[in-house]
Formats: sequence, C-alpha cells, structure tokens
Amino acid sequence: MEKKLEDYVRTIPDFPKKGIMFRDITTVLKDPDGFKMAIDDMLSALQGLEFDAIAGAESRGFIFASPLAYELNKPLILIRKARKLPADTVSATYDLEYGSATIEMHKDSIKPGDRVVLVDDLIATGGTVKAAASLVEKLGGTVVKMLFVMELAGLDARKNLPEYDIHSSIIYPGK
Amino acid sequence: MEKKLEDYVRTIPDFPKKGIMFRDITTVLKDPDGFKMAIDDMLSALQGLEFDAIAGAESRGFIFASPLAYELNKPLILIRKARKLPADTVSATYDLEYGSATIEMHKDSIKPGDRVVLVDDLIATGGTVKAAASLVEKLGGTVVKMLFVMELAGLDARKNLPEYDIHSSIIYPGK
Repeated sequence: MEKKLEDYVRTIPDFPKKGIMFRDITTVLKDPDGFKMAIDDMLSALQGLEFDAIAGAESRGFIFASPLAYELNKPLILIRKARKLPADTVSATYDLEYGSATIEMHKDSIKPGDRVVLVDDLIATGGTVKAAASLVEKLGGTVVKMLFVMELAGLDARKNLPEYDIHSSIIYPGK
Repeated sequence: MEKKLEDYVRTIPDFPKKGIMFRDITTVLKDPDGFKMAIDDMLSALQGLEFDAIAGAESRGFIFASPLAYELNKPLILIRKARKLPADTVSATYDLEYGSATIEMHKDSIKPGDRVVLVDDLIATGGTVKAAASLVEKLGGTVVKMLFVMELAGLDARKNLPEYDIHSSIIYPGK
C-alpha cells in the first residue's frame, strides 16, 4: 500500500514529559519521499493563492518555509525568538503552560498591505501562530494562509483562530 | 552592475555586543534573487559529489540545508541544541566565548559509512561545525563537505579544521 505522510512521522511517548505523545518529524525529513510529500502538500495548498511573502517560525518552521520560498520565488521572512534578530523588530509575547515566550520579526521584513503565508511544523493550541500573525498585522500585513505539517485537533486551535485560513497536512484527533 | 550575493547581506555594527560586525542574512532571504543565489551556489558546490545525507545546524543552518535536501532528493538530518530531539542521541559539547554549548543528533539519523554534507549559515572559529562533524563521526559517518553562506576568515577556521573540505559562498577577510 502506498505510504501516506503520517506514516513517516514517529510518535514518541512521554517526551518532553510524561503524558505527551511527541510527534517527531525527523523521520519525515530523513526520508526524501516523506519530505517531498510534506513540501508538495504545502505547495498544493498554496496553488492559486496570491501572496507576497512566506514567514517561518523558529526553528522547525524554517525547515518547511524555506523550500517553499525557494520553489515559489517568494521572500522568506524569519520569525525568531527574542534577541536573535539584529535590526529593529516588532515583538509579541504569548503564554506557555509555564511562563511565557516572546517572538520577533524585523520591522522591514514586510510592507503594509503585504499578503503573508505563515508556516510552522505543528499547530497545537495556536498560541505561537497567533502571536506570529499579530507581528504581521502590526506591520500592516495580512495573514492569508497558515500552513502546518501537523495539527493536534483536540487542542482546538481552529476555535481559537476563527479568522485565519488554516491548512494542516496531518490532523491528529487528540492532544 | 549585476548584484553579487554579498550585496544582499546587511552588516549591523555592535550586535549582539559592542565591537561585533553582525552579518545579517535576513536581507538575503527576503529577496528571492538573493536567496536563489545563496542556494544555487551551494548546489554548484555539490555538483559531482557523491553523498548520502545533508545535515543542517540549528537554527539558521536549517534554512539552507532544507532546500538543498529537497532539490537533491537527499535525507535531511537535524543537528539541534540539547534536549530538543526526542529519540536516542549522540551529543558533543564545545566551548563558547563564555561557557559552552551542547548539540545533538539522533543516533538513527545516519548509518555507518554514510557520506554527509554539513550546512550552516556562518563559519567563524569553526567550533560549532567541528562539534557537528564529531557527531557524524561518532555514528560512523564521514563529513565529505562543509557548506556555509559566510566565512569570517580572520578567525582561522580553516587552520582549525584542516581535515575538512570547506566551501563558503562569501569570505569576509576580518572577524
């Protein structure tokens, strides 16, 4: 039987802590057929969409955003953890289970009116990508699509982010 | 006059601290011509080379390793900071200016005998990439090429790493 993208994902129980089923994409990346399937599914999801730039979230988002930008000849924008980007930035802080995290984007990375595609490996509650979208919006851009390899549907990101067009290549029903 | 790759790099003085001339690649990435030039120079450097996998160093190395792996249909291996990879790893610790850092690679990411290309955005003293190469070697692989967008030649990485074949797309004479 033909392999599907989800067959390349390895699930590791209790990482990084007890009770979490960690979805490991390194087994997708190390098989060229799996990686091609992941990128090509994202390319399909972008077909017919007009947009100006692709933004990837540090660090696994870079892995998927980068070939898309290269293939489609679009600007690649980095959304990075705090204090990594050297020029003027906008920043957004979001809650984690314990504490909070801050992400940043260069102010000159997009122009007002730009239509931006956001890319990450995983959407869980949607906290990271909501903060990422707020960076684009602070700079006058619009998020026209969000692309993920995997979605944990049990964490209700789509309910938390009703205003965005979300495409996930694999949807896991649980958490 | 035709633009060269180095014309896309932005230099930011005194980041992350006074006296450092930071070479910012976000301006390469956000111009599709610049990014294409960077990836295509790496693709040229790999022409005619036989190898089994491409390994990228977290996190900016991912940006360049990923399109290479996709284009060349090769396994993409992640070299990550400590405690990020969920399965069994090999690890290596190297000195920084203050303190030290540890990087890891999954034990099952390559097989003994595999010929591996290492990719990162920048080579300075070569400390990171030397540690990365040691991970490949612990698993019985051979590093057949190291690719960088930028090299700070004044920091003498080539003297520290005489046994490796290093290709840098841009060579800065200073530090």
